Amino acid sequence: MILCDIGNTTLDWYINGVSSKQSVDDFDPKEHSEKIYYISVNAKLSSVLKSFDNWCNIAQFVDLTKYYATMGIDRIMACEAINSGIIVDAGSAITVDVMHDDHYNGGFIALGLRCAQEAYAKLSPALAKSFNFEVDLTIMAKNTPDAITIGFLAPLIDKINSLGRPIYVTGGDSKVLAPLLGDVIVDDLLIFKGMIKLIEKVH
Amino acid sequence: MILCDIGNTTLDWYINGVSSKQSVDDFDPKEHSEKIYYISVNAKLSSVLKSFDNWCNIAQFVDLTKYYATMGIDRIMACEAINSGIIVDAGSAITVDVMHDDHYNGGFIALGLRCAQEAYAKLSPALAKSFNFEVDLTIMAKNTPDAITIGFLAPLIDKINSLGRPIYVTGGDSKVLAPLLGDVIVDDLLIFKGMIKLIEKVH
Repeated sequence: MILCDIGNTTLDWYINGVSSKQSVDDFDPKEHSEKIYYISVNAKLSSVLKSFDNWCNIAQFVDLTKYYATMGIDRIMACEAINSGIIVDAGSAITVDVMHDDHYNGGFIALGLRCAQEAYAKLSPALAKSFNFEVDLTIMAKNTPDAITIGFLAPLIDKINSLGRPIYVTGGDSKVLAPLLGDVIVDDLLIFKGMIKLIEKVH
Repeated sequence: MILCDIGNTTLDWYINGVSSKQSVDDFDPKEHSEKIYYISVNAKLSSVLKSFDNWCNIAQFVDLTKYYATMGIDRIMACEAINSGIIVDAGSAITVDVMHDDHYNGGFIALGLRCAQEAYAKLSPALAKSFNFEVDLTIMAKNTPDAITIGFLAPLIDKINSLGRPIYVTGGDSKVLAPLLGDVIVDDLLIFKGMIKLIEKVH
Protein backbone atom coordinates (compact mmCIF):
# COMPACT_ATOMS: atom_id res chain seq x y z
CA MET A 1 0.00 0.00 0.00
CA ILE A 2 1.26 3.49 -0.86
CA LEU A 3 0.28 6.45 1.33
CA CYS A 4 1.06 10.13 0.92
CA ASP A 5 0.54 13.00 3.38
CA ILE A 6 0.76 16.22 1.36
CA GLY A 7 1.72 19.42 3.13
CA ASN A 8 2.36 22.90 1.79
CA THR A 9 6.11 22.39 1.33
CA THR A 10 6.69 18.64 1.76
CA LEU A 11 5.14 15.30 0.84
CA ASP A 12 5.48 12.50 3.41
CA TRP A 13 5.45 9.11 1.71
CA TYR A 14 4.83 5.70 3.29
CA ILE A 15 5.61 2.98 0.75
CA ASN A 16 5.42 -0.66 1.85
CA GLY A 17 6.35 0.24 5.43
CA VAL A 18 9.11 2.73 4.63
CA SER A 19 8.62 6.46 5.15
CA SER A 20 10.38 9.18 3.16
CA LYS A 21 10.04 12.89 2.36
CA GLN A 22 9.86 14.79 -0.92
CA SER A 23 9.81 18.52 -1.63
CA VAL A 24 6.61 19.79 -3.26
CA ASP A 25 8.84 21.40 -5.92
CA ASP A 26 10.21 17.95 -6.94
CA PHE A 27 6.75 16.36 -7.18
CA ASP A 28 5.12 15.30 -10.44
CA PRO A 29 1.94 13.18 -10.06
CA LYS A 30 2.40 11.79 -13.59
CA GLU A 31 5.48 9.89 -12.35
CA HIS A 32 3.17 7.56 -10.39
CA SER A 33 0.92 4.96 -12.02
CA GLU A 34 0.22 2.84 -8.90
CA LYS A 35 -2.80 3.43 -6.63
CA ILE A 36 -1.94 6.04 -4.03
CA TYR A 37 -4.04 6.92 -0.98
CA TYR A 38 -3.43 10.50 0.13
CA ILE A 39 -4.47 13.34 2.36
CA SER A 40 -3.61 16.95 1.56
CA VAL A 41 -3.65 20.38 3.21
CA ASN A 42 -2.21 21.76 -0.03
CA ALA A 43 -5.20 23.23 -1.89
CA LYS A 44 -3.30 23.63 -5.17
CA LEU A 45 -2.10 20.01 -5.30
CA SER A 46 -5.47 18.69 -4.12
CA SER A 47 -7.04 20.37 -7.13
CA VAL A 48 -4.44 18.94 -9.55
CA LEU A 49 -4.80 15.39 -8.17
CA LYS A 50 -8.57 15.29 -8.73
CA SER A 51 -7.91 14.55 -12.42
CA PHE A 52 -5.80 11.45 -11.65
CA ASP A 53 -7.81 8.25 -11.19
CA ASN A 54 -5.02 6.44 -9.32
CA TRP A 55 -4.83 9.16 -6.65
CA CYS A 56 -7.47 8.50 -3.95
CA ASN A 57 -8.16 11.27 -1.44
CA ILE A 58 -9.18 9.42 1.72
CA ALA A 59 -10.58 12.57 3.38
CA GLN A 60 -13.84 11.42 1.71
CA PHE A 61 -13.96 8.35 3.99
CA VAL A 62 -13.87 10.35 7.26
CA ASP A 63 -17.02 10.95 9.27
CA LEU A 64 -16.33 14.68 9.44
CA THR A 65 -19.24 15.26 11.86
CA LYS A 66 -16.92 13.81 14.55
CA TYR A 67 -14.56 16.78 14.13
CA TYR A 68 -14.88 20.50 13.33
CA ALA A 69 -15.09 22.10 9.91
CA THR A 70 -11.74 23.90 9.78
CA MET A 71 -9.71 21.14 11.50
CA GLY A 72 -6.66 20.04 9.47
CA ILE A 73 -6.99 16.60 7.81
CA ASP A 74 -3.56 15.59 9.21
CA ARG A 75 -4.82 16.20 12.77
CA ILE A 76 -7.98 14.23 11.97
CA MET A 77 -5.93 11.26 10.65
CA ALA A 78 -3.82 11.16 13.83
CA CYS A 79 -7.07 11.10 15.84
CA GLU A 80 -8.44 8.28 13.66
CA ALA A 81 -5.36 6.22 14.61
CA ILE A 82 -6.38 5.83 18.26
CA ASN A 83 -9.53 5.19 20.28
CA SER A 84 -8.64 6.97 23.51
CA GLY A 85 -5.73 9.21 24.50
CA ILE A 86 -3.98 12.51 23.94
CA ILE A 87 -2.25 13.24 20.62
CA VAL A 88 0.55 15.81 20.50
CA ASP A 89 1.70 16.66 16.96
CA ALA A 90 4.83 18.78 17.35
CA GLY A 91 5.47 20.43 14.01
CA SER A 92 5.40 24.05 12.85
CA ALA A 93 2.49 24.32 15.28
CA ILE A 94 2.00 21.99 18.26
CA THR A 95 -1.52 20.58 18.05
CA VAL A 96 -2.99 18.74 21.03
CA ASP A 97 -6.12 16.61 20.61
CA VAL A 98 -8.15 14.48 22.99
CA MET A 99 -9.91 11.24 21.94
CA HIS A 100 -12.16 9.24 24.28
CA ASP A 101 -13.84 6.00 23.19
CA ASP A 102 -13.48 6.96 19.51
CA HIS A 103 -15.12 10.34 20.24
CA TYR A 104 -13.27 13.61 19.56
CA ASN A 105 -13.29 15.75 22.74
CA GLY A 106 -11.56 18.80 21.19
CA GLY A 107 -8.06 20.17 21.36
CA PHE A 108 -5.88 23.24 21.08
CA ILE A 109 -3.07 24.70 18.99
CA ALA A 110 0.16 26.04 20.51
CA LEU A 111 3.02 27.61 18.56
CA GLY A 112 5.77 25.27 17.36
CA LEU A 113 9.24 25.40 18.94
CA ARG A 114 10.92 27.19 16.03
CA CYS A 115 8.02 29.61 15.59
CA ALA A 116 8.07 30.51 19.30
CA GLN A 117 11.83 31.13 19.32
CA GLU A 118 11.47 33.34 16.23
CA ALA A 119 8.69 35.31 17.95
CA TYR A 120 10.88 35.96 21.02
CA ALA A 121 13.75 37.06 18.74
CA LYS A 122 11.43 39.45 16.93
CA LEU A 123 10.36 41.03 20.26
CA SER A 124 13.88 42.02 21.26
CA PRO A 125 17.50 41.18 20.38
CA ALA A 126 17.91 40.41 24.12
CA LEU A 127 15.40 37.53 23.70
CA ALA A 128 17.01 36.11 20.53
CA LYS A 129 18.22 33.02 22.40
CA SER A 130 17.85 29.30 21.78
CA PHE A 131 15.68 27.34 24.19
CA ASN A 132 17.62 25.46 26.88
CA PHE A 133 16.05 21.98 26.76
CA GLU A 134 18.17 20.91 29.75
CA VAL A 135 16.49 23.37 32.12
CA ASP A 136 14.33 22.20 35.03
CA LEU A 137 10.83 23.31 33.95
CA THR A 138 9.50 23.15 37.54
CA ILE A 139 11.59 26.10 38.78
CA MET A 140 11.64 29.86 38.08
CA ALA A 141 14.44 31.18 35.85
CA LYS A 142 17.33 33.50 36.70
CA ASN A 143 18.79 34.00 33.23
CA THR A 144 17.31 34.89 29.84
CA PRO A 145 17.55 31.55 27.93
CA ASP A 146 15.93 29.74 30.87
CA ALA A 147 13.32 32.51 31.26
CA ILE A 148 12.04 32.14 27.68
CA THR A 149 12.31 28.31 27.75
CA ILE A 150 10.32 28.07 30.97
CA GLY A 151 7.95 30.83 29.81
CA PHE A 152 7.04 28.92 26.68
CA LEU A 153 7.46 25.25 27.61
CA ALA A 154 6.59 24.89 31.30
CA PRO A 155 2.96 26.05 30.96
CA LEU A 156 2.45 23.92 27.82
CA ILE A 157 4.03 20.77 29.27
CA ASP A 158 2.02 21.13 32.50
CA LYS A 159 -1.20 21.61 30.50
CA ILE A 160 -0.61 18.55 28.29
CA ASN A 161 0.30 16.42 31.30
CA SER A 162 -2.91 17.51 33.06
CA LEU A 163 -5.02 15.96 30.26
CA GLY A 164 -4.31 12.35 31.25
CA ARG A 165 -2.73 9.33 29.61
CA PRO A 166 -1.82 7.70 27.26
CA ILE A 167 -0.05 10.52 25.38
CA TYR A 168 1.03 9.86 21.77
CA VAL A 169 3.69 12.23 20.43
CA THR A 170 4.30 12.63 16.71
CA GLY A 171 5.73 15.23 14.29
CA GLY A 172 9.16 16.66 13.53
CA ASP A 173 9.86 17.80 17.11
CA SER A 174 8.53 14.63 18.78
CA LYS A 175 12.02 13.61 19.95
CA VAL A 176 12.60 17.01 21.61
CA LEU A 177 9.20 17.26 23.29
CA ALA A 178 8.75 13.65 24.44
CA PRO A 179 11.43 13.65 27.18
CA LEU A 180 9.89 16.80 28.69
CA LEU A 181 6.47 15.12 28.91
CA GLY A 182 7.68 12.00 30.69
CA ASP A 183 5.79 8.77 30.11
CA VAL A 184 4.64 9.02 26.48
CA ILE A 185 4.50 6.96 23.29
CA VAL A 186 6.51 8.47 20.44
CA ASP A 187 4.97 7.38 17.13
CA ASP A 188 6.08 9.19 13.99
CA LEU A 189 3.76 7.01 11.89
CA LEU A 190 0.55 8.01 13.68
CA ILE A 191 -0.95 9.85 10.69
CA PHE A 192 -0.20 6.90 8.37
CA LYS A 193 -1.70 4.49 10.93
CA GLY A 194 -4.91 6.57 10.93
CA MET A 195 -4.97 6.48 7.13
CA ILE A 196 -4.49 2.69 7.04
CA LYS A 197 -7.21 2.14 9.66
CA LEU A 198 -9.63 4.23 7.63
CA ILE A 199 -8.77 2.51 4.32
CA GLU A 200 -9.27 -0.91 5.93
CA LYS A 201 -12.62 0.19 7.36
CA VAL A 202 -14.09 1.15 3.97
CA HIS A 203 -12.68 -1.79 1.93
CA MET B 1 8.52 64.30 42.09
CA ILE B 2 8.98 63.57 38.38
CA LEU B 3 9.57 59.99 37.21
CA CYS B 4 10.25 58.67 33.72
CA ASP B 5 10.31 55.06 32.49
CA ILE B 6 12.10 55.11 29.13
CA GLY B 7 11.40 52.34 26.64
CA ASN B 8 12.58 51.82 23.09
CA THR B 9 9.61 53.58 21.49
CA THR B 10 7.79 55.33 24.37
CA LEU B 11 8.51 57.32 27.53
CA ASP B 12 6.12 56.76 30.45
CA TRP B 13 5.96 59.87 32.63
CA TYR B 14 4.68 60.15 36.20
CA ILE B 15 4.47 63.83 37.17
CA ASN B 16 2.99 64.75 40.54
CA GLY B 17 0.73 61.71 40.55
CA VAL B 18 -0.37 61.90 36.92
CA SER B 19 0.87 59.41 34.33
CA SER B 20 1.26 60.14 30.61
CA LYS B 21 3.02 58.80 27.54
CA GLN B 22 5.37 60.40 25.01
CA SER B 23 6.87 59.05 21.81
CA VAL B 24 10.67 58.74 21.84
CA ASP B 25 10.63 60.73 18.58
CA ASP B 26 9.02 63.72 20.32
CA PHE B 27 11.46 63.71 23.24
CA ASP B 28 14.09 66.40 23.82
CA PRO B 29 15.85 66.20 27.22
CA LYS B 30 16.82 69.90 26.96
CA GLU B 31 13.13 70.81 27.37
CA HIS B 32 13.34 69.72 31.03
CA SER B 33 15.19 71.70 33.70
CA GLU B 34 13.60 70.05 36.79
CA LYS B 35 15.13 67.03 38.54
CA ILE B 36 13.91 63.84 36.87
CA TYR B 37 14.38 60.32 38.21
CA TYR B 38 14.40 57.77 35.39
CA ILE B 39 15.00 54.18 34.35
CA SER B 40 15.77 53.25 30.75
CA VAL B 41 16.03 50.16 28.56
CA ASN B 42 16.86 52.50 25.67
CA ALA B 43 20.67 52.35 25.35
CA LYS B 44 20.86 55.36 23.03
CA LEU B 45 18.85 57.68 25.29
CA SER B 46 20.63 56.38 28.43
CA SER B 47 23.88 57.47 26.86
CA VAL B 48 22.54 60.93 25.93
CA LEU B 49 21.08 61.54 29.41
CA LYS B 50 24.41 60.91 31.18
CA SER B 51 25.49 64.46 30.23
CA PHE B 52 22.43 66.05 31.93
CA ASP B 53 22.91 66.73 35.65
CA ASN B 54 19.16 66.96 36.36
CA TRP B 55 18.48 63.47 34.94
CA CYS B 56 19.13 60.88 37.67
CA ASN B 57 19.26 57.20 36.62
CA ILE B 58 17.97 55.30 39.63
CA ALA B 59 19.23 51.95 38.35
CA GLN B 60 22.37 52.90 40.32
CA PHE B 61 20.41 52.60 43.60
CA VAL B 62 19.32 48.97 43.02
CA ASP B 63 21.08 46.11 44.78
CA LEU B 64 21.55 44.24 41.48
CA THR B 65 22.92 41.15 43.26
CA LYS B 66 19.25 40.41 44.16
CA TYR B 67 18.43 39.93 40.46
CA TYR B 68 20.21 38.57 37.37
CA ALA B 69 22.56 40.42 35.06
CA THR B 70 20.43 40.62 31.91
CA MET B 71 17.09 41.28 33.67
CA GLY B 72 15.28 44.37 32.39
CA ILE B 73 15.34 47.38 34.77
CA ASP B 74 11.55 47.79 34.35
CA ARG B 75 10.99 44.23 35.66
CA ILE B 76 13.36 44.96 38.54
CA MET B 77 11.45 48.15 39.47
CA ALA B 78 8.13 46.27 39.55
CA CYS B 79 9.77 43.70 41.87
CA GLU B 80 11.10 46.50 44.10
CA ALA B 81 7.52 47.72 44.54
CA ILE B 82 6.42 44.68 46.56
CA ASN B 83 7.80 42.45 49.31
CA SER B 84 6.01 39.20 48.50
CA GLY B 85 3.83 38.12 45.58
CA ILE B 86 3.68 37.38 41.87
CA ILE B 87 4.13 40.19 39.34
CA VAL B 88 2.67 39.83 35.85
CA ASP B 89 3.73 42.58 33.43
CA ALA B 90 1.62 42.10 30.31
CA GLY B 91 3.26 44.13 27.56
CA SER B 92 4.97 43.21 24.30
CA ALA B 93 6.23 40.23 26.34
CA ILE B 94 4.45 38.88 29.42
CA THR B 95 7.00 38.72 32.23
CA VAL B 96 6.17 36.83 35.42
CA ASP B 97 8.31 37.32 38.54
CA VAL B 98 8.13 35.89 42.05
CA MET B 99 9.12 37.86 45.17
CA HIS B 100 9.20 36.35 48.66
CA ASP B 101 10.13 38.41 51.75
CA ASP B 102 11.95 40.98 49.58
CA HIS B 103 13.94 38.16 47.93
CA TYR B 104 13.75 37.56 44.15
CA ASN B 105 12.84 33.91 43.48
CA GLY B 106 13.12 34.10 39.67
CA GLY B 107 10.58 34.31 36.90
CA PHE B 108 9.86 33.63 33.26
CA ILE B 109 9.04 35.39 30.00
CA ALA B 110 6.05 34.46 27.80
CA LEU B 111 5.17 36.07 24.49
CA GLY B 112 2.82 39.05 24.62
CA LEU B 113 -0.75 38.76 23.31
CA ARG B 114 -0.15 40.69 20.09
CA CYS B 115 3.15 38.94 19.43
CA ALA B 116 1.55 35.50 19.90
CA GLN B 117 -1.33 36.29 17.55
CA GLU B 118 1.15 37.53 14.92
CA ALA B 119 3.16 34.31 15.29
CA TYR B 120 0.04 32.17 14.68
CA ALA B 121 -0.85 34.30 11.63
CA LYS B 122 2.68 33.83 10.25
CA LEU B 123 2.36 30.02 10.60
CA SER B 124 -0.71 29.78 8.40
CA PRO B 125 -3.49 31.99 6.99
CA ALA B 126 -5.90 29.51 8.65
CA LEU B 127 -4.51 30.56 12.06
CA ALA B 128 -4.67 34.32 11.36
CA LYS B 129 -7.51 34.77 13.86
CA SER B 130 -8.02 37.06 16.83
CA PHE B 131 -8.04 35.48 20.27
CA ASN B 132 -11.50 34.87 21.73
CA PHE B 133 -11.19 36.26 25.26
CA GLU B 134 -14.72 35.04 26.05
CA VAL B 135 -13.80 31.36 25.68
CA ASP B 136 -13.82 29.00 28.65
CA LEU B 137 -10.10 28.23 29.12
CA THR B 138 -10.83 25.04 31.08
CA ILE B 139 -12.27 23.16 28.08
CA MET B 140 -10.85 21.81 24.81
CA ALA B 141 -11.63 23.75 21.63
CA LYS B 142 -13.72 22.75 18.60
CA ASN B 143 -13.03 25.74 16.35
CA THR B 144 -9.89 27.56 15.25
CA PRO B 145 -10.14 30.87 17.18
CA ASP B 146 -10.82 28.96 20.41
CA ALA B 147 -8.05 26.44 19.62
CA ILE B 148 -5.35 29.12 19.37
CA THR B 149 -6.74 31.10 22.33
CA ILE B 150 -6.79 28.03 24.57
CA GLY B 151 -3.45 26.85 23.15
CA PHE B 152 -1.74 30.09 24.10
CA LEU B 153 -3.64 31.33 27.16
CA ALA B 154 -4.88 28.29 29.10
CA PRO B 155 -1.38 26.88 29.84
CA LEU B 156 -0.06 30.34 30.78
CA ILE B 157 -3.01 31.27 33.01
CA ASP B 158 -2.86 27.88 34.77
CA LYS B 159 0.90 28.27 35.33
CA ILE B 160 0.59 31.79 36.78
CA ASN B 161 -2.28 30.74 39.03
CA SER B 162 -0.20 27.80 40.32
CA LEU B 163 2.43 30.21 41.69
CA GLY B 164 0.28 31.49 44.57
CA ARG B 165 -1.11 34.83 45.68
CA PRO B 166 -1.15 37.83 45.74
CA ILE B 167 -0.83 38.42 42.00
CA TYR B 168 -0.13 41.99 40.81
CA VAL B 169 -0.93 42.65 37.13
CA THR B 170 0.54 45.63 35.29
CA GLY B 171 1.35 46.64 31.70
CA GLY B 172 -0.64 47.57 28.59
CA ASP B 173 -2.64 44.31 28.50
CA SER B 174 -3.34 44.19 32.28
CA LYS B 175 -7.07 44.82 31.75
CA VAL B 176 -7.34 41.91 29.28
CA LEU B 177 -5.32 39.41 31.31
CA ALA B 178 -6.60 40.21 34.81
CA PRO B 179 -10.16 38.80 34.38
CA LEU B 180 -8.69 35.52 33.11
CA LEU B 181 -6.52 35.16 36.23
CA GLY B 182 -9.33 35.70 38.73
CA ASP B 183 -8.46 37.27 42.08
CA VAL B 184 -5.64 39.71 41.24
CA ILE B 185 -4.58 43.30 41.93
CA VAL B 186 -4.36 45.42 38.77
CA ASP B 187 -1.80 48.18 39.34
CA ASP B 188 -0.62 50.10 36.29
CA LEU B 189 1.66 52.24 38.50
CA LEU B 190 3.70 49.31 39.88
CA ILE B 191 6.96 50.34 38.16
CA PHE B 192 6.61 53.94 39.38
CA LYS B 193 5.86 52.67 42.91
CA GLY B 194 9.08 50.64 42.83
CA MET B 195 10.98 53.72 41.68
CA ILE B 196 9.49 55.89 44.47
CA LYS B 197 10.26 53.24 47.12
CA LEU B 198 13.85 53.08 45.96
CA ILE B 199 14.28 56.89 45.85
CA GLU B 200 12.86 57.22 49.37
CA LYS B 201 15.21 54.47 50.60
CA VAL B 202 18.36 56.27 49.44
CA HIS B 203 17.38 59.83 50.44
